[in-house]
Amino acid sequence: MPYITMECGKLTTEQKENLISRLTETASEATGIPPEFFMITIKELPDTNMGFGGKTVEKTKREYLKK
Amino acid sequence: MPYITMECGKLTTEQKENLISRLTETASEATGIPPEFFMITIKELPDTNMGFGGKTVEKTKREYLKK
Amino acid sequence: MPYITMECGKLTTEQKENLISRLTETASEATGIPPEFFMITIKELPDTNMGFGGKTVEKTKREYLKK
Amino acid sequence: MPYITMECGKLTTEQKENLISRLTETASEATGIPPEFFMITIKELPDTNMGFGGKTVEKTKREYLKK
Amino acid sequence: MPYITMECGKLTTEQKENLISRLTETASEATGIPPEFFMITIKELPDTNMGFGGKTVEKTKREYLKK
Amino acid sequence: MPYITMECGKLTTEQKENLISRLTETASEATGIPPEFFMITIKELPDTNMGFGGKTVEKTKREYLKK
Repeated sequence: MPYITMECGKLTTEQKENLISRLTETASEATGIPPEFFMITIKELPDTNMGFGGKTVEKTKREYLKK
Repeated sequence: MPYITMECGKLTTEQKENLISRLTETASEATGIPPEFFMITIKELPDTNMGFGGKTVEKTKREYLKK
Repeated sequence: MPYITMECGKLTTEQKENLISRLTETASEATGIPPEFFMITIKELPDTNMGFGGKTVEKTKREYLKK
Repeated sequence: MPYITMECGKLTTEQKENLISRLTETASEATGIPPEFFMITIKELPDTNMGFGGKTVEKTKREYLKK
Repeated sequence: MPYITMECGKLTTEQKENLISRLTETASEATGIPPEFFMITIKELPDTNMGFGGKTVEKTKREYLKK
Repeated sequence: MPYITMECGKLTTEQKENLISRLTETASEATGIPPEFFMITIKELPDTNMGFGGKTVEKTKREYLKK
């Protein structure tokens, strides 16, 4: 029973539906495990709660927009 | 120091208190590790953010209620 | 920077390469986020360490093969 | 479809079977969700990879045995 | 590409910015991996959703304040 | 009780001891929460099980060394 979780920023309901359906399809094809065995969760986080290279996504976006 | 996390839909405060207490008790008995060493978190997710078999819980429930 | 992790049984190196490439492609298309922003990890667990419906995958497989 | 994962030290196969069965039963009773909907994983980590209060479990145990 | 995630109670934006910057710096120094390779997420949970020793943080705080 | 977990490649015992001690110190200073409340785990993954931009770390390293 494979479990897939995705952490990302805010998404629309349609994007989440599409992600859950297509990630299942892709992972099922790549592993040969039937789709009905897959469980998927999506964790949406605010930009202040994600960072890479030591800077929050919020600060990175803020600085990008100031250029 | 075992760490247990549970991802699920919306729960009441009482259910969460009960879960944290009883999961600790059960895991302590099964492993022989004293209860005070256990840490537990509960992550509640909306039905649009959880899916199995390629379909969101929200869509599965919607289709079930239409029958 | 979306982060995707998949927990599953033992996979071949080829399956893992294929999964990482195709999950990135699928998630990028579904969200509109460029592929180079995606990070993916795969956590392989033994059948004794995964269960659903209260039974380990190892026990489920054992009982299935006895039939 | 609730998902529960437990991170801990090395366990026996019997302990893992018991944990997966009893954690499912406990969580099912506490939430009213049928047991067959539960997925559980157990991640065993070496003592060098877990720590609390800033010290690895391995170092804590080593110092404890020296007393 | 190391990935670090922290689960905790409510934090201010400033605390999160500081955490993401300083955890990256610390982990980079300890591993020798350049800071720009690090991804960090922070998951804030309500006191009712975290517990140790079998009791929620919310109940522990409530009982502490009654003393 | 904050919980921090780090997913990365293979590290030495010394690096892990140093990480667990210094990540606790840093996070304690940044949040004002006493160090003894912190739990940390480190999950080491093979290069074939981690990828970014759609390519495994193993393949990225292999191609880099061919240049």
